Amino acid sequence: MKNMIVGQSGGPTAAINSSLYGVAAEGLRQKEFIGRVYGMVNGIEGFLEGRILDFEDALPGNTLEGLKTTPGAYLGSCRYKLPEDLSDPVYPELFAKFEELQIGYVFYIGGNDSMDTVSKLSRYAASVNSDIRFIGEPKTVDNDLVLTDHTPGFGSAARYVASTVREIVIDANVYEKKSVTIIEIMGRHAGWLTAASALARKYKGDNPLLIYLPETAFDQEAFLKKVEGCFDKTPNVIVCVSEGIHDDKGTFICEYDNNVGTDTFGHKMLAGCGKYLENLVRNRLGVKARSVELNVSQRCSASMMSAADQKEAVMAGEFGVRAALRGYTGKMVAYKRTCNLPYAITLGLEDVNEICNKEKTVPMEWIMEDGSDISDDFVIYALPLIQGTVEVPMGTDGLPAFVYRK
Amino acid sequence: MKNMIVGQSGGPTAAINSSLYGVAAEGLRQKEFIGRVYGMVNGIEGFLEGRILDFEDALPGNTLEGLKTTPGAYLGSCRYKLPEDLSDPVYPELFAKFEELQIGYVFYIGGNDSMDTVSKLSRYAASVNSDIRFIGEPKTVDNDLVLTDHTPGFGSAARYVASTVREIVIDANVYEKKSVTIIEIMGRHAGWLTAASALARKYKGDNPLLIYLPETAFDQEAFLKKVEGCFDKTPNVIVCVSEGIHDDKGTFICEYDNNVGTDTFGHKMLAGCGKYLENLVRNRLGVKARSVELNVSQRCSASMMSAADQKEAVMAGEFGVRAALRGYTGKMVAYKRTCNLPYAITLGLEDVNEICNKEKTVPMEWIMEDGSDISDDFVIYALPLIQGTVEVPMGTDGLPAFVYRK
Repeated sequence: MKNMIVGQSGGPTAAINSSLYGVAAEGLRQKEFIGRVYGMVNGIEGFLEGRILDFEDALPGNTLEGLKTTPGAYLGSCRYKLPEDLSDPVYPELFAKFEELQIGYVFYIGGNDSMDTVSKLSRYAASVNSDIRFIGEPKTVDNDLVLTDHTPGFGSAARYVASTVREIVIDANVYEKKSVTIIEIMGRHAGWLTAASALARKYKGDNPLLIYLPETAFDQEAFLKKVEGCFDKTPNVIVCVSEGIHDDKGTFICEYDNNVGTDTFGHKMLAGCGKYLENLVRNRLGVKARSVELNVSQRCSASMMSAADQKEAVMAGEFGVRAALRGYTGKMVAYKRTCNLPYAITLGLEDVNEICNKEKTVPMEWIMEDGSDISDDFVIYALPLIQGTVEVPMGTDGLPAFVYRK
Repeated sequence: MKNMIVGQSGGPTAAINSSLYGVAAEGLRQKEFIGRVYGMVNGIEGFLEGRILDFEDALPGNTLEGLKTTPGAYLGSCRYKLPEDLSDPVYPELFAKFEELQIGYVFYIGGNDSMDTVSKLSRYAASVNSDIRFIGEPKTVDNDLVLTDHTPGFGSAARYVASTVREIVIDANVYEKKSVTIIEIMGRHAGWLTAASALARKYKGDNPLLIYLPETAFDQEAFLKKVEGCFDKTPNVIVCVSEGIHDDKGTFICEYDNNVGTDTFGHKMLAGCGKYLENLVRNRLGVKARSVELNVSQRCSASMMSAADQKEAVMAGEFGVRAALRGYTGKMVAYKRTCNLPYAITLGLEDVNEICNKEKTVPMEWIMEDGSDISDDFVIYALPLIQGTVEVPMGTDGLPAFVYRK
């Protein structure tokens, strides 16, 4: 009987540990088919250094349940990219470690970079006739994975964005004097999370009055005209923008006057288009302006976790384990929406090679022609994903009690 | 039988509408003594323009309850300062409006500027032998009012800060590589809210490892040494700073050469002290650094409202109405802590003239000598104030359902 191992990779979300719970709990239930249930500490990078844990020791009994309401990445994460060249010595090294631990099933929870890892490992396995099975578990607040209706983690992040924007609208409305609040939301290339700010509206024409995604080119003169027009409707204008908005030449708005670096994957690191637009509005329109960057709480706050998201993440985790036991490998668990009213999904498997290194952006037909808003199609799509409140257990200190790796 | 009116002033908090609920509900209950219960729309400024509402029309029956879980300022706010000179014509103008509406009792919810309004109105009333009674209801996330153990709104903001910092610590810990996260927290002169980040610690020596308040002078070289020392304990260092930290010459750190860019007009874009320190750490220590500004959610998020704070705010509102009926005027409702274990407070009245235009800062004996941390005395003081979760009603859209003025 083989053992299994699971790892987490990439940026954390509120639901990535719900996926982990699903994988680990299902692994522990499959006692006739699976021996030990291991976790890679800090993903494939930590695994290479021999850092693993055994779930039965680390989270015995029902302490495992705590994962479902713990944000972050319980196992720790990494941003390690496996070499393109499958003849690189890291592959036999990894597989020797898998053999040593008698691993038959590997689960990797992450976004498209992580699916790239699953792709390479499963292709290497095929090339050396290894029967180790590799399954990808999707995760990303960005909702940018192809071949799945949405991704675990998006619903909770979207609910955080929507409720926080709704609260900021309330905050802006306490004074009568004209004001513009720019809210900067995560999303480099895909505007899903910024689009979620539309869910904050209580009726048609409510704030946020303007929503700009990175899917279209941003024109700052047109933007200023739009903002001025909004003052006909309300003195307090809320504008939501993706961190990745750019002009028609592809220059990021935050790059207009900011120095930015790159991360280990070569992604540009963005910060500050909200600050830039705040200054632009203040100087050009002569009105009170402020900016709010929602920042990391979008991906790590458990306070607005969506019950729908949590439940689906657990289900996807369990489904992946059963798929591996049935012999599947090189697949990612995917959501397929079968009905919208009432909302229903089924789980399926998609080829990781078709998923990794691709990005699903918001459909152009859902974005208003001038790029300043999102259509009801998005709202219909996203509304079921943010439903339901999760009760986070509180500790004796009155604050959320999360589970931690020892 | 006289009518009563209540107004809100200054910045919003998560609990300011709980105070409003207490005042309005108690007013409506006192049917033998109080006629109509009015609200000033946008405080004393809106009242001068004749903008008022009647609570029985605006929030009939149990819709009033919705105030208790609605952040912001239901009545709208203002930042209007009454003239120092009590012979200014605005005073007879205001009192004529009070007479016109047959107002016998005025309640004003706010911070020290609002207590200044209560002080002036009550002194003017005395000078013209008016029997209208003026009662101040405290409110501020800054917790900087004197003569009260703490202020309504602080507990909820502190709980938001503590739980959000705890989540950001989790987010920072997913990677192994050395990193520094600077969290910028509200508080220009008083560090109460920044001190609340100490509540995020689960054990002695847990993150946030450094906490800097505006009560002491900030030395950036000493700070850098401290941060370096922290890497002996953990690779991921969290530092919490008040927005108002300054050096020994009184210059705000955010005013240091903190040019994050220039806008299209060449205007310097100033960022907060968090951004400045992020860059300082990255450039001087050569480690990954990021900054998070908790921003307005500290004062407008209902997601982490403290049940203790909410309950006390309602009680203080009710108490103020009963005090006015007993003949008190020119007073602010104050909390007096009678016991810490178990925590207990009583309500009392303090002279608004002793409160307005003063600021209560964190006691120096609670701050570590080198200004880099806060003592357990603060934790013992603040812990009871953040206890209990408030269930915020959700709407059919799956998001918090707040009440709004029509």
